[in-house]
Amino acid sequence: MQMSYHIFGESHGTGIGVVMENLPSGIRLDFDAIEQDMARRRAKTDGTSTTRIESDCPKILSGVFEGYTTGTPLCAVIENENTRSGDYKATKDLARPGHADYTGNLRYRGYQDYRGGGHFSGRMTAPLVFAGAVAKQVLKQAGITVGAHILQIGRIKDIPFDPVSVNEKQLKAVAAKSFSVVDDQIGQMMREEILQARSNLTSVGGIIQCAIVGVKPGIGQNDFDSVESVISRNLFAIPAVKGVEFGLGFGYASAHGHEVNDPFVNQNGRIVTQTNHNGGVLGGITSGMPIIFQAVFKPTPSISKEQQTVNLQTGENEKLVIKGRHDPCIVGRAAVVVEAAAALSILQLTGDIQMPMKEDEI
Amino acid sequence: MQMSYHIFGESHGTGIGVVMENLPSGIRLDFDAIEQDMARRRAKTDGTSTTRIESDCPKILSGVFEGYTTGTPLCAVIENENTRSGDYKATKDLARPGHADYTGNLRYRGYQDYRGGGHFSGRMTAPLVFAGAVAKQVLKQAGITVGAHILQIGRIKDIPFDPVSVNEKQLKAVAAKSFSVVDDQIGQMMREEILQARSNLTSVGGIIQCAIVGVKPGIGQNDFDSVESVISRNLFAIPAVKGVEFGLGFGYASAHGHEVNDPFVNQNGRIVTQTNHNGGVLGGITSGMPIIFQAVFKPTPSISKEQQTVNLQTGENEKLVIKGRHDPCIVGRAAVVVEAAAALSILQLTGDIQMPMKEDEI
Amino acid sequence: MQMSYHIFGESHGTGIGVVMENLPSGIRLDFDAIEQDMARRRAKTDGTSTTRIESDCPKILSGVFEGYTTGTPLCAVIENENTRSGDYKATKDLARPGHADYTGNLRYRGYQDYRGGGHFSGRMTAPLVFAGAVAKQVLKQAGITVGAHILQIGRIKDIPFDPVSVNEKQLKAVAAKSFSVVDDQIGQMMREEILQARSNLTSVGGIIQCAIVGVKPGIGQNDFDSVESVISRNLFAIPAVKGVEFGLGFGYASAHGHEVNDPFVNQNGRIVTQTNHNGGVLGGITSGMPIIFQAVFKPTPSISKEQQTVNLQTGENEKLVIKGRHDPCIVGRAAVVVEAAAALSILQLTGDIQMPMKEDEI
Amino acid sequence: MQMSYHIFGESHGTGIGVVMENLPSGIRLDFDAIEQDMARRRAKTDGTSTTRIESDCPKILSGVFEGYTTGTPLCAVIENENTRSGDYKATKDLARPGHADYTGNLRYRGYQDYRGGGHFSGRMTAPLVFAGAVAKQVLKQAGITVGAHILQIGRIKDIPFDPVSVNEKQLKAVAAKSFSVVDDQIGQMMREEILQARSNLTSVGGIIQCAIVGVKPGIGQNDFDSVESVISRNLFAIPAVKGVEFGLGFGYASAHGHEVNDPFVNQNGRIVTQTNHNGGVLGGITSGMPIIFQAVFKPTPSISKEQQTVNLQTGENEKLVIKGRHDPCIVGRAAVVVEAAAALSILQLTGDIQMPMKEDEI
Repeated sequence: MQMSYHIFGESHGTGIGVVMENLPSGIRLDFDAIEQDMARRRAKTDGTSTTRIESDCPKILSGVFEGYTTGTPLCAVIENENTRSGDYKATKDLARPGHADYTGNLRYRGYQDYRGGGHFSGRMTAPLVFAGAVAKQVLKQAGITVGAHILQIGRIKDIPFDPVSVNEKQLKAVAAKSFSVVDDQIGQMMREEILQARSNLTSVGGIIQCAIVGVKPGIGQNDFDSVESVISRNLFAIPAVKGVEFGLGFGYASAHGHEVNDPFVNQNGRIVTQTNHNGGVLGGITSGMPIIFQAVFKPTPSISKEQQTVNLQTGENEKLVIKGRHDPCIVGRAAVVVEAAAALSILQLTGDIQMPMKEDEI
Repeated sequence: MQMSYHIFGESHGTGIGVVMENLPSGIRLDFDAIEQDMARRRAKTDGTSTTRIESDCPKILSGVFEGYTTGTPLCAVIENENTRSGDYKATKDLARPGHADYTGNLRYRGYQDYRGGGHFSGRMTAPLVFAGAVAKQVLKQAGITVGAHILQIGRIKDIPFDPVSVNEKQLKAVAAKSFSVVDDQIGQMMREEILQARSNLTSVGGIIQCAIVGVKPGIGQNDFDSVESVISRNLFAIPAVKGVEFGLGFGYASAHGHEVNDPFVNQNGRIVTQTNHNGGVLGGITSGMPIIFQAVFKPTPSISKEQQTVNLQTGENEKLVIKGRHDPCIVGRAAVVVEAAAALSILQLTGDIQMPMKEDEI
Repeated sequence: MQMSYHIFGESHGTGIGVVMENLPSGIRLDFDAIEQDMARRRAKTDGTSTTRIESDCPKILSGVFEGYTTGTPLCAVIENENTRSGDYKATKDLARPGHADYTGNLRYRGYQDYRGGGHFSGRMTAPLVFAGAVAKQVLKQAGITVGAHILQIGRIKDIPFDPVSVNEKQLKAVAAKSFSVVDDQIGQMMREEILQARSNLTSVGGIIQCAIVGVKPGIGQNDFDSVESVISRNLFAIPAVKGVEFGLGFGYASAHGHEVNDPFVNQNGRIVTQTNHNGGVLGGITSGMPIIFQAVFKPTPSISKEQQTVNLQTGENEKLVIKGRHDPCIVGRAAVVVEAAAALSILQLTGDIQMPMKEDEI
Repeated sequence: MQMSYHIFGESHGTGIGVVMENLPSGIRLDFDAIEQDMARRRAKTDGTSTTRIESDCPKILSGVFEGYTTGTPLCAVIENENTRSGDYKATKDLARPGHADYTGNLRYRGYQDYRGGGHFSGRMTAPLVFAGAVAKQVLKQAGITVGAHILQIGRIKDIPFDPVSVNEKQLKAVAAKSFSVVDDQIGQMMREEILQARSNLTSVGGIIQCAIVGVKPGIGQNDFDSVESVISRNLFAIPAVKGVEFGLGFGYASAHGHEVNDPFVNQNGRIVTQTNHNGGVLGGITSGMPIIFQAVFKPTPSISKEQQTVNLQTGENEKLVIKGRHDPCIVGRAAVVVEAAAALSILQLTGDIQMPMKEDEI
C-alpha cells in the first residue's frame, strides 16, 4: 500500500499534526534528526522571520513502539502556543490580498477558522516537516538522501547544484546550515535582500532548489504517477509555491535538442548520462541520475504597507494595514519544507522499503 | 464520484484509447468540436511536424447512447494505421538520449513495446485530446472555456494573455487557428524557428500558456487537491512537459509583495482582483479570476544529428543516428493537448455538473 | 471531494483518534449526541463486558471552530488511560488463537505494539464511533437516520426491522437503549446467553442489523462504488466482522425470483417497492426504500479456557491461558459501531451535503 | 502502484471491455486458459441458461507485446454480436422488478442505455472474467491458485471445500468442469432445480464458495485494505451478489469462542491453524491457511411470470411480462466470475509480483 499523509490543524486552534499511513515498520526514529529539521523551519531571530517563535515539539501519539515505527498509522501532534488571536479579529472581514481569506471564505462558507490564516497558515508546514523527517529516515535505509538550498531570493542567486555530481555529502553540508545556501557569502546578501524588503514594508520571493540522490533507476511511470506528477502534486500543496520545474525546466523553451539531450554513456559498467538537463527523470521514470527540481515561492502576502481590499461583510472597498507578526520572506525557512515534500513523494513512488524481521522474531 | 480517465495503448500496437469514468450523463456530444480538436493535434503538412499523419478517428465503444453521454464509462478507441515498425527494430537496443527507452526498459524489465516509443509515444496524446474535447463539452454546460496558445518557441515569444481580461471570445479565436498563437506574424516567425532547427538536424522547445475562464470562485483545496496540484499532476503526465507555473510563476522569485499581491476590489457587486499575478488561484482555491498557467516542453529528443548512447544489450558505448519520422518541435501541436489536460483537471475539481433529467423521464 | 477518515492509535499507546477529511463546513456539532454514542460503545457494568472501562472523551484538536465544522480536517484524540500493560507482557510471544497476534507479527515484522492487541484492538472502534457520530449529524441535515440493533446473540434472536416500514422513530428508540434491541425481553435473554458463555469460560458471537432511512433514490453505482461495496468495505474494517449481507442476503440462496423480486408500485406519486428483500439497493444504487443489512461478529477470541498455540519466539507448541480483561461477547457494544461505519459510508456515497453560507457572510 | 481494472460497455452497445493498469510486465499470457475461463462463463446449451450465446472473444488492443504483458495498460475489447435490441424497446419504460431499471434511470437521469440492462447487464462480467484470467496467470507465478464451486442452488447443497486441506489440485479439478461442483451427482440435482424454476416461469438463487491457496501469511491490513474489505468490495460490484462471508461467516453468530478459535500449531516448522473457521484471514491479514469465502447470488430478476410494476414515463401502475432471453439461474455461470473478482483482489493485495528482467536485457 502506498504511504499517505494527512495534515490537520489551524494556526490558532488547539493543535496541528499529521497522520502517516503505510509507513514501513522497523524504522528506528532519530529524534535528533527530526528536531534538526524542525529547527530549520523555525523562525529565525535575525530579523528575517516573524517574531512568533514556537518550540513546535511534535508529540507522537501512535505508530512508534520502543523507538521503532510499527507500520500502523503514526500520528504526531504539535500543540499551539504563543497565539495572539486578538491580532486578527479586528481585520477578520478584510480579505488580505494574496491570501486565501476570500477564497477560503467561499470554499468553507464562512465557517473556517480565520485566525492567523487558520488551516491555510504557513504553520501547517510544521507537521509537514515532521513527516518529511520521518520519510527521510525511511529513505536513508535505501541509501537515498534529499537536500535543498535557497537558489534565489529577490535578485540574489546562489550557486546551483551540479546536476551530475551533486552528492550526499554536499546535501548534508547544506542541510546543516541554519540558512541553507551553498555559498554563505551569497547567503548573507540574501539576508540583506530580505531585511531591505522588510524595511520597505514589503516582502520578497525566491526559489528553492532540491536534489535527491541515491534513487534507483526505473522508479515511476509515464502517467499521473510520473515522478514529476507526484512531486509537483505534493509541492503545490505547500502554501506560496506557484511553479515547479525539473532539471533545466523553463530553460528548455529556448534550448535545442542536440544541446540538452543528455547522452548515455557506460561508465565503469553503470549507465549514466553525461549531462543531466532532465533532472534525473525520463518519461516520468527515474534515470538513476540525481533528481533535481526548483520550486518558486511568491513573496509573503502579509506586508505592512497599506493595501486595497474589500470588506467581506459589507462588500465595501476598504484600506487594510496588516498587523501581527509576519515573515518578510518565507524562502529562508522553506528549504526544509521542500525537502519534506520531496522525501514524502519519493517514499510514495518507491513503495515499501524492505526491512528485515525484528531480530528476536521468527 | 470524481471523473477519472485511463489512457491505454502503444504507438505501433493494435489500438490506443481512453476510458472516462464518472462523466455526467446527458451531455450531447458535438463530434465536430471533437474532430476540430483532434485536427489541431494532428501533424501539420508544412514541414514543422512529422510526416506520419494519421486520421486518428476515435471510435466510441460505450458510454454514449443516442448522442448523449450515459454517465457510465465512456471508451473510445483509435486504431493504429500508417505504422512503419521496421524503422525502429534496427536501433531497438540503442537507448535514444532524452527518451524513455532506457528508463522504460528498466521499469518494465525489457518487456515494453519498444516500437516508436510504445506507451511513451507522444501518440498517447491523441486519446488525451479526445478526452479533453469531451471534458470541454461538459464544462461548457457550466459556462467554462479553456484555451491555450504557443507562448514561446525557441527565442520567439507570442503576446501573453492578459490575466485579467482574457475571455471566451479570445480563447475561441486562438483555438480556431491551426497554429495557435495570438499574433500570427509571431506565429510565422515561430514556424521559421522550427524549420531552422530542422535544417540544423536538431529540435527546439517552447512554452504553452493556457487560460480557463468561467470557473466559479471557491473551487479546490489547500492540499493535494489544490487547483495547482491537480492541474500540474495531469500536465506532467504529458510527454516532454518539464515545468509548470501559475500566473507570474517563476517571475515571483524577484518580485516584492506590494507589487504582486493582487488587491481586491468590489466591481459592481462582484469581488475581483485588480491584477491577477496569482493566475486565478489563492490558497489552492479558485478566485473567480481567469486561471492562467504555463507549461514548458523540452525539444523533441528525436533529432537527426548523431548522438552518443549505450547499447542496452551489449553495454557498449555506440553512436546513434535516429531514423523514422519526427517532429522538430512538438510545441506547435501541444496547445490542444495542454487544453485537454486542463479541461480534465477542472472537471475533476468541479465535480459533477448538475444536469436535468431527460425531458421525457419522470 | 469524498469524505475520508483515518483512524490511528494502539490500545496501550499514548492516544488513539481519527482524522476526518472533506467534511462539509457549517455542521453544528451536538456534543451530547456524540457522548450518547460513545456511551453506547463503552463497556457495561452488568457483567456482559470487560471490566476495563474508560471515559473515552474525544478531544477535538482541529476542524471545529465556534461549534461548527470548518470543512478542513477534523482531528479528535482520545488519551489512553486505565491501561494495565503488564497483563500482556507475560504472554507476548504466545499468539492468541483467533487474534491478529500471529498475522500482525508477520505483517509488521515484529515491530507492532503487542500490548492489548495494539492497533488491532477493539479499542480502535472508539474513534470510529466518534467519527460516525459526526457523520450522523451531517446526514441529519439531509434527513437521513441510521440505526442498528442486536439481531442475534448465540441462539437468541431479536425481532428484525420491517424492511418496508422501519422509520426514524423506531431507529431512535432502539438507539436510546443501552442494550440496543427491539424487544427488551429478548434482550434480557441475550444477556443471559452472554453470562452463560462467560461462566463457561468462553465467548459467543452474534449479528447486528442496521437500517438507514431517508436516503434519496439514485445514489451509488454498479461498480466498486456500489452502495454494497462501500458499506461492506468499511464494515470489514471493524474487528471481528466476518460476513455482510444486504436485505434477504444469504436467504436468497433458496429463494425464487417471483417471491423476492420487490414489485414496484406508485404510492401516492412516489415509486416504492411493495417488499424490500433487496435491502434498499438495486444494481448498487439506492431505491429510496430503507437500506437494510446484517453484519456477523465472531465470538471474542479472548477466552479464559486454556488453548493450544505456538510460541512465536521459540516455535514451540504451548498452552495458553489468557489473562486480562475481556468481553465475553462484543455484540452488545457493536450496534453503535456498525451504525458508525454505515453513517460514514453513506456520507462517502452521497458526497457533500449542501449547506448555506454562514449568515453573516456575503 | 496497485493494480486497478476498469470495465466499460453496455449489453447492446458497440463493445464491452476492460483496461487493467499496473499489471506486472513479463507475464506470458496463456490464451487457452483465458478461453477456458471465458467458456465457463458462457451460457450453457442444456436449458439452464439464456439462449443468447456469444463467442465473447476478447481482442487485446494494448499492453501485450510478443505474448508477454508489457506492464503498461492492457485493454481488451469484446464486440457485441447476437443482440436483439428490439426485445427491450417495447418494455423500455416498465421498470423490471429486482433490476436496476428504476434506480439506474434516476442515477443517470434517463440517459442510460436501457437495452438489455445496458451497463448493468450481467454481460459486464465477460470482461471481468477476462481480467480475472489474466490476474490468475500473474498469481500463478507466485504459486497462488483460485478456484470456486457452486455451493448451493435453491435447496440443493454441494460438499463444501475442506477449509484446511483444500488444495490446488482440487481447485483445478472443479474448475475443469463446465458446471463447477465438487460432487457431480449433486450438480445434476442442481440442474434439475434450475429447470424446475424455469418451468415454473421463475428463477432461483444460490451460493458460490471460493478458495484461494498459496497466499503467503502477512498480506493485508486491519483497515479498509483488509483482505475481507478488498475482496468484498470487488465482489459486491458483481450484479446479483447480496452477501459475502468469510470462513464460518454467519455461522459464527451461534458459535462459541472455544469451538471456533482456530488453535495454532507448529507443523513441521510451519505455523498453521488446526481448524480454519476464520477462512484464512485474521485481523484482516492472511494467515497462510486457505482463504475461503462464500458469496450469495439472488435469483435472476428476469422471470417469465407476470409482475407488478410502474411505467416510468406515465407513472401508472402496470403489469409486466418480460420477454427476451434470460437465465433461470445465474449461479451456474457465476463460479468463474467470483474467481475473477477474487484473483483481482488478491493481486491488488499482494502488489507487484517480482519478475526478472527479460533474458536478453541487461
